[in-house]
Amino acid sequence: MERRHKKYYSRVRAIFADTDAMQVVYHVNYIKWFEIGRNEMLRQSGYPYTEMVDDGIWMPVVEVGCEYKSPAIYDDLIEISAWIEYVKGAVVMIGYECRNEETGKLYVKGFTKHGITDPDLKPINLKKVYPKAYEKLMAVMEK
Amino acid sequence: MERRHKKYYSRVRAIFADTDAMQVVYHVNYIKWFEIGRNEMLRQSGYPYTEMVDDGIWMPVVEVGCEYKSPAIYDDLIEISAWIEYVKGAVVMIGYECRNEETGKLYVKGFTKHGITDPDLKPINLKKVYPKAYEKLMAVMEK
Amino acid sequence: MERRHKKYYSRVRAIFADTDAMQVVYHVNYIKWFEIGRNEMLRQSGYPYTEMVDDGIWMPVVEVGCEYKSPAIYDDLIEISAWIEYVKGAVVMIGYECRNEETGKLYVKGFTKHGITDPDLKPINLKKVYPKAYEKLMAVMEK
Amino acid sequence: MERRHKKYYSRVRAIFADTDAMQVVYHVNYIKWFEIGRNEMLRQSGYPYTEMVDDGIWMPVVEVGCEYKSPAIYDDLIEISAWIEYVKGAVVMIGYECRNEETGKLYVKGFTKHGITDPDLKPINLKKVYPKAYEKLMAVMEK
Repeated sequence: MERRHKKYYSRVRAIFADTDAMQVVYHVNYIKWFEIGRNEMLRQSGYPYTEMVDDGIWMPVVEVGCEYKSPAIYDDLIEISAWIEYVKGAVVMIGYECRNEETGKLYVKGFTKHGITDPDLKPINLKKVYPKAYEKLMAVMEK
Repeated sequence: MERRHKKYYSRVRAIFADTDAMQVVYHVNYIKWFEIGRNEMLRQSGYPYTEMVDDGIWMPVVEVGCEYKSPAIYDDLIEISAWIEYVKGAVVMIGYECRNEETGKLYVKGFTKHGITDPDLKPINLKKVYPKAYEKLMAVMEK
Repeated sequence: MERRHKKYYSRVRAIFADTDAMQVVYHVNYIKWFEIGRNEMLRQSGYPYTEMVDDGIWMPVVEVGCEYKSPAIYDDLIEISAWIEYVKGAVVMIGYECRNEETGKLYVKGFTKHGITDPDLKPINLKKVYPKAYEKLMAVMEK
Repeated sequence: MERRHKKYYSRVRAIFADTDAMQVVYHVNYIKWFEIGRNEMLRQSGYPYTEMVDDGIWMPVVEVGCEYKSPAIYDDLIEISAWIEYVKGAVVMIGYECRNEETGKLYVKGFTKHGITDPDLKPINLKKVYPKAYEKLMAVMEK
């Protein structure tokens, strides 16, 4: 049985800063918007990243991927959705989509894979070492 | 027998603009540096992207991926290498590495996958439609 | 008697992308946020920039200035205020402040000065050539 | 008698990342390039910023200004010149120009004004407190 992942939504308006001379949003900027989605997902779930860092838990990015489906343009209102795909050992996988907020048209989908580490970037098995933090992160995914 | 891909080199110095509050280069900026590598690869090979565009050939990004191996910091001198992995139908796959220019330490490796299209973003089979441009692009890879 | 300028408000959350290795918001990014302020000011006033461009009116930036009062950090919620200082001949002067939305603490204040031009970047005296557009822009300032 | 200020040169190629949907370099990015000019000026003069920071001297930006003279476009090779205008008390004023490296055409001119502080951002009178560092900074200007 598939476990459904709760999605969290945030939004950003594409400004000239985000576009390029092809007159579309510069492809790299969607991955910057993934950070907005991730940040707001954690805040909305009640376990903001600032609090994780206070708990001594870091989530450095170890891999990103993004597929481009259609181009967003200047002044488009972008809906970013983010969700936790899984938490496994010292790894968190997060999924994203960027869509036109008005039409629902898909611009991109992608992922970021994060290590779970201490401030010295040593991997930590969250479930064993910080069971409370692990429960909070699982709650982001499931609730 | 494996075909070796010719690598092209360019460089960039990490400035504060490239870093983030984790005191390392912000992960997204390496993918921006891939564009430098791609741009210089085409220029060095004698078929700059501006000339491709003049020939009516566009290469929109359809997918990117990046793996993070070690963090670059402020003032590091980054060597970007770029190479064409393959040209197939209306698709070009380009590979990249970013290393410390002095020590050779690997920061990231990644790829960008591009469509080959006309200015209306319609895919074109380069080999059939623009055999001369195809030969030039193959030469980037092989020579 | 001083004419009061109507202020328009927008907001942005500082993410890692916005910060630098000094662990504060990178100074240049406030000027990018000015664009958000300007864009939302025009939208809120009922004369969005996309509509101006449709009317054949461009507002290229001819000068910017920014003074830094205190540093914003990661995860701060930034309130951007923007207002039109004046419209004179073919020039629009826009003022900005960025403050902490919760505490009101001032981060920066600045301005952007824009030409009013046609799509060929030729200056146009808005009041004479497009009196309706001029009235709309004056309304942004005063209402 | 006017004291001539030694200029230091660096260069950057405009890529799509630097441009916007107006098909020119996004105005804010020149100010990012000022940082390249400043960084290379200090390095070329023999007193790189990393060394200043090791000496306990920080130079936070307190004001920037930029005037836009003509637009740079994709693939333009930009020559950045930077020079120290003056060092006075706990303030350093730096001037910049961005030109087309091939034609000499002026794109922008601007300045950044910096405080001279300790790592706690307390102003320090360089001449009195760190006379050696002061001499090095004066040498950047004069030599």
